[in-house]
Amino acid sequence: MTAITLLSDFGLKDEYVAVMKGVILTVCPDASIVDISHQISPQNVAQAGRMLRAAYSWFPTGTVHLAVVDPGVGSSRAAIAARYNDHLFVAPDNGLLVNVWGDAGPDTVVQLTNNRYFLSPVSRTFHGRDLFAPVAAHLAKGIRLDEMGTPLTSAEISRPKDASPRCTATMIAGTIMEVDHFGNLRSDIEATMLDALTGRGAKYEVVVNIGKHRICGVNDTYADRPTGELMALVGSRGQLEISVNCGNAEQVTGVRPGTPISVVRASEVNQNGPKEED
Amino acid sequence: MTAITLLSDFGLKDEYVAVMKGVILTVCPDASIVDISHQISPQNVAQAGRMLRAAYSWFPTGTVHLAVVDPGVGSSRAAIAARYNDHLFVAPDNGLLVNVWGDAGPDTVVQLTNNRYFLSPVSRTFHGRDLFAPVAAHLAKGIRLDEMGTPLTSAEISRPKDASPRCTATMIAGTIMEVDHFGNLRSDIEATMLDALTGRGAKYEVVVNIGKHRICGVNDTYADRPTGELMALVGSRGQLEISVNCGNAEQVTGVRPGTPISVVRASEVNQNGPKEED
Amino acid sequence: MTAITLLSDFGLKDEYVAVMKGVILTVCPDASIVDISHQISPQNVAQAGRMLRAAYSWFPTGTVHLAVVDPGVGSSRAAIAARYNDHLFVAPDNGLLVNVWGDAGPDTVVQLTNNRYFLSPVSRTFHGRDLFAPVAAHLAKGIRLDEMGTPLTSAEISRPKDASPRCTATMIAGTIMEVDHFGNLRSDIEATMLDALTGRGAKYEVVVNIGKHRICGVNDTYADRPTGELMALVGSRGQLEISVNCGNAEQVTGVRPGTPISVVRASEVNQNGPKEED
Repeated sequence: MTAITLLSDFGLKDEYVAVMKGVILTVCPDASIVDISHQISPQNVAQAGRMLRAAYSWFPTGTVHLAVVDPGVGSSRAAIAARYNDHLFVAPDNGLLVNVWGDAGPDTVVQLTNNRYFLSPVSRTFHGRDLFAPVAAHLAKGIRLDEMGTPLTSAEISRPKDASPRCTATMIAGTIMEVDHFGNLRSDIEATMLDALTGRGAKYEVVVNIGKHRICGVNDTYADRPTGELMALVGSRGQLEISVNCGNAEQVTGVRPGTPISVVRASEVNQNGPKEED
Repeated sequence: MTAITLLSDFGLKDEYVAVMKGVILTVCPDASIVDISHQISPQNVAQAGRMLRAAYSWFPTGTVHLAVVDPGVGSSRAAIAARYNDHLFVAPDNGLLVNVWGDAGPDTVVQLTNNRYFLSPVSRTFHGRDLFAPVAAHLAKGIRLDEMGTPLTSAEISRPKDASPRCTATMIAGTIMEVDHFGNLRSDIEATMLDALTGRGAKYEVVVNIGKHRICGVNDTYADRPTGELMALVGSRGQLEISVNCGNAEQVTGVRPGTPISVVRASEVNQNGPKEED
Repeated sequence: MTAITLLSDFGLKDEYVAVMKGVILTVCPDASIVDISHQISPQNVAQAGRMLRAAYSWFPTGTVHLAVVDPGVGSSRAAIAARYNDHLFVAPDNGLLVNVWGDAGPDTVVQLTNNRYFLSPVSRTFHGRDLFAPVAAHLAKGIRLDEMGTPLTSAEISRPKDASPRCTATMIAGTIMEVDHFGNLRSDIEATMLDALTGRGAKYEVVVNIGKHRICGVNDTYADRPTGELMALVGSRGQLEISVNCGNAEQVTGVRPGTPISVVRASEVNQNGPKEED
């Protein structure tokens, strides 16, 4: 049984996700279909890309990942399928997958042009059903990527760039990208950036500034701080998060996606006159 | 592996859907269970029927579709199972399935009376668990429909009618039936009615009136209109929808389900003095 | 195919649930994974336990039930796996599973100490992914419980107690524990307590007091009362519920979880001067 994951902005109240699953099971009856999420903000391609990057590698190698956040459906945007890190990906060519492979680029990528693997006719409003789902199902059945369409180079793929955090020798300036179900504020600051700032393997002797709040240090686990207290830690995505033990950091801080977050070496703060959080 | 789809108004926060799946897997361990939706408005039988009609045919033939929106649970309403268009259906006899087969009627339909295929005892509050789920699972295992109960004729099935759009030679008067996750306003006006109004295969030279808004023409795809502009198109259900490219038509118009929508031949509007949308 | 159920407070918008499924499928590719719910209130261990008790026994024997509501993740709380009533359970040792087996205790229970069955490294913020999911998947593959860690006695398991209803010869004093998707108010009063109050097999000749409302009798089914009328019945969990036929009891009464509910023998009420509901 091959796993196929689904990621979209379709929500759960309509029949859209189920229809894609019906199409997949018609082509590949024993596929094991797993939802990553269908609650991406409508048309938020970058949010979907970040989630897919965080999720895909926990699945078995060979899994087919189908991601449909597709504001350009029916326009001239291309559809692509790719292999990267022994996983397969199917999505519109709108930059979604660039978040998955980053500067490395995919190992192989094709433009989906072989309509033998599409439904017929292909509508102009629902390529998830008519094009992406049957392609994913055929890949799960073992059809080779190069039979699906025309090879592309990495340079030919649409590459909108998320702004990355700005890193200097003494500080990192990042952004809150997401608020999760628990109210954790998820930033784009990678643990590796913290390692570079303070020395790999060292405790993170840093001060984190977020909104009006200043947090000293980065903890290992929620239980390291008293219930209700704001804290910073490296979350399950390997990125800096702001949390509240048994609480909701979004409610405590009022911070929303897009808010800047900075991390400064503690020694630097001390040299420039430390201030306690009030 | 046989697919079984589930459709209900149970929501996702309680254990109800999972309990039905547990019962199904106990009878038929290798069933491939797919949720269509569990977010039907409570007791909205017609909404469930429309969604099932839109979804079922995308699944493999032989799929068993289990639909439980059942305000009459525990009363004298019958339970039925049917074959239609090479799919199998299980539901209360409350008109839900009439939306699926329309005037054609099912190919075969039985009243579920053979309690050999029910759990024992059958509660009076949760037939989804005690009656419909085990029947669906036995159908998926290959038990024949006629072993499940007593044959009925189409005339014996409960047939509440949705009002249909009113069509004349120059106009169609329909209704907004649903608002989807994206805020698209879904009407009950079929593409075939538009074909009949303007001539099959022709571009739809029509004017669409919805609330205080007038929309000229029907587009093929979201990207055909500028971002944020109200538009009409034939959606993935094959019915007229009102949408906003990269936006939310419900928020733009304030229109809710039940609002009238009319489509008038453009020539007709012009003869009677065209007005531009203001 | 072995079934694995998932229950958590993770919600559906993030990738957390999918990541656990990916880990499970990596270990046990043909597991049949079923969500019980991921909408437990954040950190509400007791709510999760009650739901698991209501759901687990409807699954095939041998099913592995994975429940992760884990405010103590990364602290010193233990992780356990257990066999009870021919089902397998995996959860943090925080009292969640005590709701499942009650005073009976599990048949076997081990502390999860064998890191051969964990991911490596184990993070300090997401044991659902790194520890519980792979253990559940290995159990589904047939690895024996006693290979997973160190045997514990029932006495060694964390046992926070939910307060139980107080029962006398003439009345039961319980609590509304949950409000379900339909607005039904679910109490902790078991049908067996009603049996004891009025005589097993008899109609329940009782008066139910909830908030400012008094309800006479317990009905068998929603349709036994007129549309919109408040009623009491024994719900699908086998516990007393307050409902409104085709309506929402939460909206009608304004009652929230934690509200007391009492049941008094009707004869008792009559002796003390009956009052009609106004």
